[in-house]
Amino acid sequence: MELNKFERIDDLQLNNLKIIQNTKSFCYGIDAVLLSNYIKSKLKYNILEIGTGTGIIPLLLSAKIKFKHIDAIEIQENIVEMAKRSIKMNDLEEKISILNFDIKEYKAKVKPAHYNIVLTNPPYTKMGTGKTNPNETFAISRHEMSCSLDDILKASYHALQSNGSLYMIHRADRLTDIICEMRKYNIEPKNIRYIYPKINKPPNLILIKGIKGGKSDLKHESPLIIYNDDGTYTKEIKTIYGLVDS
Amino acid sequence: MELNKFERIDDLQLNNLKIIQNTKSFCYGIDAVLLSNYIKSKLKYNILEIGTGTGIIPLLLSAKIKFKHIDAIEIQENIVEMAKRSIKMNDLEEKISILNFDIKEYKAKVKPAHYNIVLTNPPYTKMGTGKTNPNETFAISRHEMSCSLDDILKASYHALQSNGSLYMIHRADRLTDIICEMRKYNIEPKNIRYIYPKINKPPNLILIKGIKGGKSDLKHESPLIIYNDDGTYTKEIKTIYGLVDS
Repeated sequence: MELNKFERIDDLQLNNLKIIQNTKSFCYGIDAVLLSNYIKSKLKYNILEIGTGTGIIPLLLSAKIKFKHIDAIEIQENIVEMAKRSIKMNDLEEKISILNFDIKEYKAKVKPAHYNIVLTNPPYTKMGTGKTNPNETFAISRHEMSCSLDDILKASYHALQSNGSLYMIHRADRLTDIICEMRKYNIEPKNIRYIYPKINKPPNLILIKGIKGGKSDLKHESPLIIYNDDGTYTKEIKTIYGLVDS
Repeated sequence: MELNKFERIDDLQLNNLKIIQNTKSFCYGIDAVLLSNYIKSKLKYNILEIGTGTGIIPLLLSAKIKFKHIDAIEIQENIVEMAKRSIKMNDLEEKISILNFDIKEYKAKVKPAHYNIVLTNPPYTKMGTGKTNPNETFAISRHEMSCSLDDILKASYHALQSNGSLYMIHRADRLTDIICEMRKYNIEPKNIRYIYPKINKPPNLILIKGIKGGKSDLKHESPLIIYNDDGTYTKEIKTIYGLVDS
């Protein structure tokens, strides 16, 4: 297969899946793996991803869970084209559609109340905080340049069926914004799991699941710890990465 | 000292402090100890406690931190009288005032913008959920019969100076309500610490600090774990209880 400049093909070590990544752009990280591992689905479920980037999460989900179809939206045209090639390379075009539009156009572009699941690994940093990356592809992926939490929640409410689930991974320090925005759009937080780099460190990420129209009842889960004291991966992370039998 | 029926005097194992508790009523638990250990204060600070019960937290604070004065409010007249005797027995009447009124009367009874710190270990269960205890003293301490989170936040906003701190310990499953109510009353969540019974279990309690008029920036702290795998207290809990040198 022909690759563009700076592109490489990575083996996902899962069902022979492969992904094209651009080494000068944003490559997927552990957050995509953790989010894809957090999702519960059924064969009849339609899934929407907001901000798919390289298409890594739909690719992982194709091996990890059952679903009917995934629509994965990405605003950045150059990445969309690359993600489409990855989907084609894995022969998943019937199960996964990569769509190129701005989520702010959800009213015109996204079927209302159609999806059982919306998932997102959104830009982590609020605009006006942190350093903006001079490389625009990095900046859009990291900062809320192209869409804010409010945009995502508004679109999720529109896209989800009643009782449908929103799954998100985000930075722990945005917890207040996340929870208040979810409640604002009637997507009630139901499950939360903290991700700790080490057991004696503060958590840096959260996995959160909300239900459209759900009742107030937040269940915390056991902590997800990435590294042992000696810097090796914990047993749970190894299992998630398929490094030991689960 | 004369004691009423079912009362006993417990030694707090701290600066010779003693407390009167009624064995038929609500005795203090680990949450009071953890909250008192979470508070940072200065010699010039005025502190308000909402719902002091037996007066346990002001007693612990008298040994743990510097402060100017603590006003501790309690709605239940029979406990107020007992708490007052505990304060007197420890010769702390000049530093700690136990006040008997309903926090819902805060406009008439609480000095506005007077306090540097408000702290509360409020009733944990929303009315209409869980079992209500037939013993009324238990019920008021456990259920939001006498005051809701909304009442507490409203009164805290009234009582705090600008940039003053609210400290609260509460059940982790009320996180959404707590965070949304804090933001509603412009007391921005700034620090949160999860309390895990064991490292592989979900957290059951949270310690949270908010700042009146603070900017959005939530700092998570390292997890506070109560028990080791073998059921003994962790080193941190032993230190908090003064069982080993810190």
